[in-house]
Amino acid sequence: MIDLRSDTVTKLTDRMRQKMFEAEVGDDVYRDDPTMRKLEELAAEMLGKEEALFVTSGTQGNQIAVLVHCSLGQEIILEEGSHILRYEGGATSAFAGIQPFPIKGERGSMSALDIEAAIRGSDIHEAETGLICLENTHNRAGGTVTSPERMKEIYAVAERHHLPIHLDGARLMNAAVALKRPMTDFTQYVTTVQICLSKGLGAPVGSIIAGSSEFITKARKWRKRLGGGLRQSGILAAPGIIALTEMMDRLEEDHEHASWLAEQVNTTPLLRVVGEVETNILMMDVSETGLTSKQFVDLLKENGILANAFAPTIVRLVTHYDVSKEAIEQTANVLKQITSEKLVK
Amino acid sequence: MIDLRSDTVTKLTDRMRQKMFEAEVGDDVYRDDPTMRKLEELAAEMLGKEEALFVTSGTQGNQIAVLVHCSLGQEIILEEGSHILRYEGGATSAFAGIQPFPIKGERGSMSALDIEAAIRGSDIHEAETGLICLENTHNRAGGTVTSPERMKEIYAVAERHHLPIHLDGARLMNAAVALKRPMTDFTQYVTTVQICLSKGLGAPVGSIIAGSSEFITKARKWRKRLGGGLRQSGILAAPGIIALTEMMDRLEEDHEHASWLAEQVNTTPLLRVVGEVETNILMMDVSETGLTSKQFVDLLKENGILANAFAPTIVRLVTHYDVSKEAIEQTANVLKQITSEKLVK
Amino acid sequence: MIDLRSDTVTKLTDRMRQKMFEAEVGDDVYRDDPTMRKLEELAAEMLGKEEALFVTSGTQGNQIAVLVHCSLGQEIILEEGSHILRYEGGATSAFAGIQPFPIKGERGSMSALDIEAAIRGSDIHEAETGLICLENTHNRAGGTVTSPERMKEIYAVAERHHLPIHLDGARLMNAAVALKRPMTDFTQYVTTVQICLSKGLGAPVGSIIAGSSEFITKARKWRKRLGGGLRQSGILAAPGIIALTEMMDRLEEDHEHASWLAEQVNTTPLLRVVGEVETNILMMDVSETGLTSKQFVDLLKENGILANAFAPTIVRLVTHYDVSKEAIEQTANVLKQITSEKLVK
Amino acid sequence: MIDLRSDTVTKLTDRMRQKMFEAEVGDDVYRDDPTMRKLEELAAEMLGKEEALFVTSGTQGNQIAVLVHCSLGQEIILEEGSHILRYEGGATSAFAGIQPFPIKGERGSMSALDIEAAIRGSDIHEAETGLICLENTHNRAGGTVTSPERMKEIYAVAERHHLPIHLDGARLMNAAVALKRPMTDFTQYVTTVQICLSKGLGAPVGSIIAGSSEFITKARKWRKRLGGGLRQSGILAAPGIIALTEMMDRLEEDHEHASWLAEQVNTTPLLRVVGEVETNILMMDVSETGLTSKQFVDLLKENGILANAFAPTIVRLVTHYDVSKEAIEQTANVLKQITSEKLVK
Repeated sequence: MIDLRSDTVTKLTDRMRQKMFEAEVGDDVYRDDPTMRKLEELAAEMLGKEEALFVTSGTQGNQIAVLVHCSLGQEIILEEGSHILRYEGGATSAFAGIQPFPIKGERGSMSALDIEAAIRGSDIHEAETGLICLENTHNRAGGTVTSPERMKEIYAVAERHHLPIHLDGARLMNAAVALKRPMTDFTQYVTTVQICLSKGLGAPVGSIIAGSSEFITKARKWRKRLGGGLRQSGILAAPGIIALTEMMDRLEEDHEHASWLAEQVNTTPLLRVVGEVETNILMMDVSETGLTSKQFVDLLKENGILANAFAPTIVRLVTHYDVSKEAIEQTANVLKQITSEKLVK
Repeated sequence: MIDLRSDTVTKLTDRMRQKMFEAEVGDDVYRDDPTMRKLEELAAEMLGKEEALFVTSGTQGNQIAVLVHCSLGQEIILEEGSHILRYEGGATSAFAGIQPFPIKGERGSMSALDIEAAIRGSDIHEAETGLICLENTHNRAGGTVTSPERMKEIYAVAERHHLPIHLDGARLMNAAVALKRPMTDFTQYVTTVQICLSKGLGAPVGSIIAGSSEFITKARKWRKRLGGGLRQSGILAAPGIIALTEMMDRLEEDHEHASWLAEQVNTTPLLRVVGEVETNILMMDVSETGLTSKQFVDLLKENGILANAFAPTIVRLVTHYDVSKEAIEQTANVLKQITSEKLVK
Repeated sequence: MIDLRSDTVTKLTDRMRQKMFEAEVGDDVYRDDPTMRKLEELAAEMLGKEEALFVTSGTQGNQIAVLVHCSLGQEIILEEGSHILRYEGGATSAFAGIQPFPIKGERGSMSALDIEAAIRGSDIHEAETGLICLENTHNRAGGTVTSPERMKEIYAVAERHHLPIHLDGARLMNAAVALKRPMTDFTQYVTTVQICLSKGLGAPVGSIIAGSSEFITKARKWRKRLGGGLRQSGILAAPGIIALTEMMDRLEEDHEHASWLAEQVNTTPLLRVVGEVETNILMMDVSETGLTSKQFVDLLKENGILANAFAPTIVRLVTHYDVSKEAIEQTANVLKQITSEKLVK
Repeated sequence: MIDLRSDTVTKLTDRMRQKMFEAEVGDDVYRDDPTMRKLEELAAEMLGKEEALFVTSGTQGNQIAVLVHCSLGQEIILEEGSHILRYEGGATSAFAGIQPFPIKGERGSMSALDIEAAIRGSDIHEAETGLICLENTHNRAGGTVTSPERMKEIYAVAERHHLPIHLDGARLMNAAVALKRPMTDFTQYVTTVQICLSKGLGAPVGSIIAGSSEFITKARKWRKRLGGGLRQSGILAAPGIIALTEMMDRLEEDHEHASWLAEQVNTTPLLRVVGEVETNILMMDVSETGLTSKQFVDLLKENGILANAFAPTIVRLVTHYDVSKEAIEQTANVLKQITSEKLVK
């Protein structure tokens, strides 16, 4: 099967397995794991922050950021299709007692103007704004990139209102590679950031959050409450180090695959790419086939391809390390074949 | 001063004061207050529900409904300008741990179709929908009415998905009077309802929530936790009884005043009513005057009129018992005078 | 019926009714109610704090204090029989997300030593202490008084650890009257305080919380979220002013009644006062009668007396304004009669 | 260094490393990881429950159980020294909004009688009991075992009141080995159970929760919210399978070591074992040395031994896989040497 459901399905590489096998470990709750220390220091440096902390998932990293930055009864401003709002089970409200204030962005990117208008204050009727959350690349919008320049404008608003910014950078590496700029070009404009090791970078488990030392000290306590305090975590840190040091540049390849596939889709009758492909995510509108996305995905599966039914008529395809150029070509062929059969009918 | 900020500013009538003075009381935490019992039975009957409970405010009533109907980690569907979302300090998230799922309505009225599309389920990424909240009349949309027919459509969706509906009917009396239909025409399509005694009806303090006996039993416990369990509450119930039995029909007058004033506004240069006036709330766009709503409200105050700066260029005017036809005429004159001065400049 | 269930059952006096009838009112959400302003200023002065705020119940006042003082995930230190822990429906955990750390006091009074030992800190396994809560007089311990000197010792611990202290002073007036000292002798050693107007002081509804201006500003917002923001609240403030200015000294009488009744109980066979009566609450052990407290209370009711079954074999009797000396004598007679019948059997 | 701080410090065995290296993996969020499936099925069977779920820590497993079993505003009954209450950062209150009702047990074991007396109900003043939590072995009490017979009595109470029981069985394996009985002898009397793979069993990371299929379905969603949904988790499942199948019987050895060390401690002047050693935890009172536990632990460290300062004068020593008989003998020698030096002084 060609698995295009998500870049989370990537299996760890042989090099990762080897490093994991050899990893020196300790009890990380006592902060005794040398491999984990090394990963956290490396990540902090790459993200331009004082300290970093390993967490077991992107959701956990985002939730910790909200728990540290906000107080009960506050509000966070975020894009209406953001992962924190749509795919984390309502955890910000359930755990932190925070109300989301969603804003519609343009291809996942909120304007500084809209954000400023959404800031609420001390009036007794209002939930005071406590945090601005960004997502880059933006998953639901189709892997879209927000430029550092746009982030700088938002940063200026945040500064003016003394508000922290948290960046859900689960796929920040893709944004950096797409614009050929270091991650620090983006992270300089946020207070804290979360990146995923287990998406395009291929590590088996885990994410990183980074920020000031004070932030990380508080984050460590919330991680413990969430049950994310691990013991011999070096076995997860070892492949994480490979992910950060050896797997980033090759994301370029995933982008090329997605881009090439997008061209094929747009020249396939009845199919159409939604917006443009900027990184490794392709949103495909199948409405003209007369099929729902669910039906279309089932059809793909019968033809050896796994994909996600993302919205009633939208199918999501994600390229990653375990999908070769041949697999992409095979996918293009299957799409053309499926739709030509629909046309004949 | 002519006070058009809100119908909440109405002072209790002499008859209310008299009834309050004479009220027979008891300790309502022990359920010993006979006047309160009478009010609650009366309200339950008028709202067509098994039982009713006095609460100290509309916010408290709405929050109790959310706390009873929902479980931690769930989601409620509501209109994006609804009172629960915008003016209750983020309490649903802070207390009940509930995430709002806002939908844009048409003049405050959500479509059954949009509601059905917003229902989320058991997927581990999603916050399961636990409740649908309606607001009728809708304050932020300008006192707009949702018809029982529209509510019936939403009710059908809710039934299909086994979801309860809570109606924030703070001004349901205005909707009923506007359509000349009993409140039960509306409440038959909701599981629970909250109405305010201290808005157009003129009681000094309090709201009512109504629903099944089981709902009210649970509601009583949440009211206690919120600090709404009162002692000799009969002194508040007495004017509440007057509010429900003697003050409802006269809301017609408030609507006529608002409607007449709207005509005047629309024939005043530089001013414009937003949408149409359906009940006792008038939203006035002042953008053409070159003033912000805040500046315009200050100008009105200098001329003896109190109003609310509702949005950057929107001023809200609300008619009520303590505003006579003369006061409305005086308001119209002031508006014409202010704007003609702006024109001359 | 002679109602000794609680001092909350006191009905408002004629003078209170008259003041309520005449009260000048306004919309207190807009802070326009002159009578409420007067009550809050008076209360702040009597409690020696910058500002005060009316709340609809003692529970609401206590919950607001916890919500303002603490952050999510913290712990409060309180006595194991305290009202906040036992009789507020678990609201501190439900709303503020706070874990109680209960300490056993001596007759309701915790030692400074035990409090200091219970303070927990930044270790990731621990919920950091955010607040110390006292209760004076202590209800469950039997209306017992904690002296200002004991409070001073606790205050020293709190200062050393930079912790705020909240005093649940629902019956602080009784403590002050019992020791013949002003309330400020007690409140000087706490950050914030809550007192009830509707217990011994006889007002129909409401409590007061007092503290710094900054505290009250935050408290007002939490009150709104809890649904305690009232409209024409002057009608509740007016009897509240009478309660504070005219009803305090007479608590002495309630104490004398309770004290006299205690002597009678202790000379009645099969009955025994638990501990000593210090104010207006009498805890009576009925175990030697062979009856449960529930059965004993039923027996009292048949004889025209209402009391509370407080624990399996403890009956609580509370004296107050609506219980005359004659009623107390009548109660003593009933107790002797009931028990002599038991003896004969 | 001889590390007796906790059995959590055990490093994974070579066999675990090998299995981890070879593990077949998949995306466990999509439930595609075959190794994880195998571990969960194995664990469910060993615990006698319908289904099991891997979680990243004991804290996460316990918190999920509370979140699934309880509703906001309820209370859980647990032992006053239990891990859930003392060492999980107040998470039950912070996340689930649950108030703990602590009971003092005898050596960590609550009586069925005390539990029944602590159950609270529908009275509006009370937080209704939603769950009973047990801990076996009990860490803070010194690794003490609660017998299945005692658990059966508690189960009868729970049944009578329709309450679920959750067992924090982080070290249930030690209890089973100590009594030479299968784990199902214990788990038959609880609704759900959590066991740790990374304590005495030596796996690097993770715990298991088990219960009905319905429970696990809900647990999976809460795990996602807590950030415990992992991707290629098979690399953690592989050593977990070794832990469950090959590491349990050898706990006997740890118990013998602890027992032998206890004899040595009790024949060492100035030192004394608190209670009796039942499994692999030894609580040692150092008060007669004139040192605090902190100072004593520092002294041990200078002599090559790591231990935990558990209470002001109590040092905790835990035996495990990475501590040989020689290391235990060395520890005994160091203890004798340290104290004889104190005696000479």
